[in-house]
Amino acid sequence: MPDAARLSDDGGTMTDEATDLATLGEFGLIGRFAATAAEGSHTLTGIGDDTAVIDVDGTRLLFTTDLMVEGVHFLSSSADLADVGFKALVSNVSDIAAMGGHPRECVVSLAAPPSTPVEALDRLWEGLSEAASAYGVTVVGGDTSSAPVLFVNVALIGEAPEGEWVGRDGAREDDEVYVTGTFGDAAGGLVMLLEERSPGDVDEERLVTAHLRPRARVAEGAAALAAGATAMIDVSDGLVADLGHVCERSGVGILLDAGEVPISAELARAAPRLGADALGLALVGGEDYELAIAVPAERSSDLVARVEALGTRCSRVGTVVEGDTDTVAGHDRSDGSAGWDHFGGTEPREGAR
Amino acid sequence: MPDAARLSDDGGTMTDEATDLATLGEFGLIGRFAATAAEGSHTLTGIGDDTAVIDVDGTRLLFTTDLMVEGVHFLSSSADLADVGFKALVSNVSDIAAMGGHPRECVVSLAAPPSTPVEALDRLWEGLSEAASAYGVTVVGGDTSSAPVLFVNVALIGEAPEGEWVGRDGAREDDEVYVTGTFGDAAGGLVMLLEERSPGDVDEERLVTAHLRPRARVAEGAAALAAGATAMIDVSDGLVADLGHVCERSGVGILLDAGEVPISAELARAAPRLGADALGLALVGGEDYELAIAVPAERSSDLVARVEALGTRCSRVGTVVEGDTDTVAGHDRSDGSAGWDHFGGTEPREGAR
Repeated sequence: MPDAARLSDDGGTMTDEATDLATLGEFGLIGRFAATAAEGSHTLTGIGDDTAVIDVDGTRLLFTTDLMVEGVHFLSSSADLADVGFKALVSNVSDIAAMGGHPRECVVSLAAPPSTPVEALDRLWEGLSEAASAYGVTVVGGDTSSAPVLFVNVALIGEAPEGEWVGRDGAREDDEVYVTGTFGDAAGGLVMLLEERSPGDVDEERLVTAHLRPRARVAEGAAALAAGATAMIDVSDGLVADLGHVCERSGVGILLDAGEVPISAELARAAPRLGADALGLALVGGEDYELAIAVPAERSSDLVARVEALGTRCSRVGTVVEGDTDTVAGHDRSDGSAGWDHFGGTEPREGAR
Repeated sequence: MPDAARLSDDGGTMTDEATDLATLGEFGLIGRFAATAAEGSHTLTGIGDDTAVIDVDGTRLLFTTDLMVEGVHFLSSSADLADVGFKALVSNVSDIAAMGGHPRECVVSLAAPPSTPVEALDRLWEGLSEAASAYGVTVVGGDTSSAPVLFVNVALIGEAPEGEWVGRDGAREDDEVYVTGTFGDAAGGLVMLLEERSPGDVDEERLVTAHLRPRARVAEGAAALAAGATAMIDVSDGLVADLGHVCERSGVGILLDAGEVPISAELARAAPRLGADALGLALVGGEDYELAIAVPAERSSDLVARVEALGTRCSRVGTVVEGDTDTVAGHDRSDGSAGWDHFGGTEPREGAR
């Protein structure tokens, strides 16, 4: 089974050995905090899903936040801040989409060096406003500060239609796993940006755009909810890592058929020129902001029909299997197929979102 | 009238001359963004008040965010991150208090250098959790990243009781202006921290605590709402600056009787030893997180009774007067009484929150 890998994820360990943030990792830190977080009486879903779900007099509100830091999430030297503002909002909208909800209001925190040109900040605001307009989000407040590097934080409220939502925790054995769209384009675009390579053709242009201007799958998320999806996540950390998050929260494993992971024609054509492995980018490259969806087998044709009716590809990539995430931690590399190992595989990447 | 100064505020200008953030200033940047922000159909109050007010199926939710950046809002060299975490939450709770609401759920974004000791991050979380517990706030999610400096952002939802709230925009001519508590203690504590001076007695200890561990006036804010307050703001930027924000939003002036601004006995005793002017600290020192409240004269005794029933001092400090903030920009220094001029007066301070 050379194209399959058994996935699960320990979600970061609360290891006593970790002495600094680099050792602990992002997921370790979140796990450490979540373990001692107090539960709220109106909290239906707390830390650990794409968004929180809270009850407001019977309405189910979704609440999420995403942070972008210069030098970590974008390259200051080459970034048009309009792209940064756009993506800062879209990454939050994508989290709402992954619950099956629709976005509503946000607050924006912005910190920047005092020497930042006003024009650059105007561009950031333009990009953010463009995304807000595209997704029906209202910016209702914010905060600003000086800082040595640029920080943009968006906190977004959404609403779960008719009080229903899809978390990461409902995947069950024998469910099928589907994804929207294609994978690896954004990572291909990032390779180009890191190499300061100008797009040589329309394929390469498409990859850079996928990285800089992702879209959130709001309608597709709602369609998956309506189709009876049992678990859903937006793929921001990479497909393998994010499926691992579903495994962890659902207490299952996922048998991923890597050969079925959809790759765009543009990436397939451009990858060799970039010296990159398209499948590797598709499996572990992050920031595609596509959805991964678990659905009972008998509902899968309905899911596909609903998503494809939106003009979006919907592909089966795997199956949910019995698994115990306490004992099956990390992905199985024993078959030697882990072509994405050099990216760090399912291990938390330092500084990754 | 040597102890009075006429205040108003132009709220930052959208000056065409500003070429970078330092020139534009925080309030200039916010004004620039707010001028082009789209209005939302569920937005009852948007950018420019202590919090936004949004309608969620008839419930009025309050929504706010506050960020803290190492080297700007706290001194990395001396900070116990428990204090930073505590204050990051309290500054948000204070914004909810200034609307007369009560806080509910928050999301937290945290970015830190990879070398940050895990123990320090645990302390930050402990302080934040302590404040969350004290104010009945549930942490429901967050995001983390690496960054060159520590960055903490909290976004907080609150609720307006019975759909009522007090904004910054309702102050009317002849209203009286009251404040809770005392002013300048936090600034006195900051002077000590900046001079790396250890508290020499209980007075100095109290000032440092006021700076590091402010409390939010939630019950007092609710009391002011119940008493019929017309405008309210929490004093984080400094009394003069924040009253200026009320002037701007309400389209009025405020005649501040500086001699009536309450100063604690501790600050009065410690200020000479610090080489500081207690009144100056009280007028322009920020981060006291007390409330400033405009109230019709006939409701003022009720306001005082309600606030003092909570064990909190409530002092009259001024009167709302006719004013046109389009033409009376900046505070009037013509009487030569502006003892706080060396702090920057009502001008936006670069990098200040």
